[in-house]
Amino acid sequence: MGIAVEAIKELREKTGCGMMDCKKALSETKGDSEKAMDLLRKKGLAAAAKRVGRVAAQGMVDAYIHTGGKLGVLVEVNCESDFVARNIEFQAFVKDIAMQVAASNPQYVSRDEVPETIISHEKEILETQAKGEGKPAKAVEKIVNGRLEKFYAETCLLDQPFIKDPKVIIKNLLANLVAKIGENIVIRRFTRYQLGEKS
Amino acid sequence: MGIAVEAIKELREKTGCGMMDCKKALSETKGDSEKAMDLLRKKGLAAAAKRVGRVAAQGMVDAYIHTGGKLGVLVEVNCESDFVARNIEFQAFVKDIAMQVAASNPQYVSRDEVPETIISHEKEILETQAKGEGKPAKAVEKIVNGRLEKFYAETCLLDQPFIKDPKVIIKNLLANLVAKIGENIVIRRFTRYQLGEKS
Repeated sequence: MGIAVEAIKELREKTGCGMMDCKKALSETKGDSEKAMDLLRKKGLAAAAKRVGRVAAQGMVDAYIHTGGKLGVLVEVNCESDFVARNIEFQAFVKDIAMQVAASNPQYVSRDEVPETIISHEKEILETQAKGEGKPAKAVEKIVNGRLEKFYAETCLLDQPFIKDPKVIIKNLLANLVAKIGENIVIRRFTRYQLGEKS
Repeated sequence: MGIAVEAIKELREKTGCGMMDCKKALSETKGDSEKAMDLLRKKGLAAAAKRVGRVAAQGMVDAYIHTGGKLGVLVEVNCESDFVARNIEFQAFVKDIAMQVAASNPQYVSRDEVPETIISHEKEILETQAKGEGKPAKAVEKIVNGRLEKFYAETCLLDQPFIKDPKVIIKNLLANLVAKIGENIVIRRFTRYQLGEKS
């Protein structure tokens, strides 16, 4: 079968093997690059695969450690150019986000990331709650949705009020920066460690 | 059914509800504290549960950000007393570990954490490799185990050579510190972000 040149190149970059070896391995595995990598390793041609692929992104990885070292946050924010990554306002934003995560303990970057099971569990509880308060059946859905917004505002970073100015929601803070800088900016991920918490 | 006082106390701490409400909820859910928490929320008695439980641990959360902000590490190291957490040698060790993770990119703290599927996949490759090199069948197992040690030394933090002194393995660095300080010390967890890597 024909193997795309891109796939061969990619395998070559990952494994450091020659083009012909990569092409052959991809042919033998019908184009499956994971299996082709294993095959090259089995033949002793490739070393253990580098785990980490790369996506095209600029930006900044930064941390915030709270006084006393009992709480720390690691955050990655992406932008499109290295020029913006070195912009002082961009860097200040990244620092603010790290501090925000430390103070407000979000569980997700955006509400898209909340697993469906968590949402339905939350909804069920809020529904029973609203019914138990004697709310009329037709009002329950509206009440539940309203309270679900509160849940998002507590658990999703982008929906949280900014700790330095609670009138501003993080997604608006971000939108303002994007408008000002003229380049897309994405809060990619964060990790928050509190000393001694169960993971 | 009888409910242990400890379970009631724990539920009370998690929910902020009264002892009697907690006891009743636990009785109704046959002692299942997760379900009891949901029940208290459905009754409107408890707010959304705090996600984070706590284990008894002292220590330090620290970060290392490599120059330029393209690479960052967050690490938690536990000890038994706050006194040791403030010890300069302990803190220097935590900083060294963060830098080690940045430089050497381990995937796990210890080899116990490597999933069984990863090990068997690795073994299969190493076996085919050794056989392909024409090694005698009875030597293959020994060769595979030897090469598996190399895999651990690359992927497990505790098995890695220390970047500041490659003759020392991290677990020995740790053991020396434990002996010197006279208190158990555990590298609990780490996270490493490389800008733009696929997660």
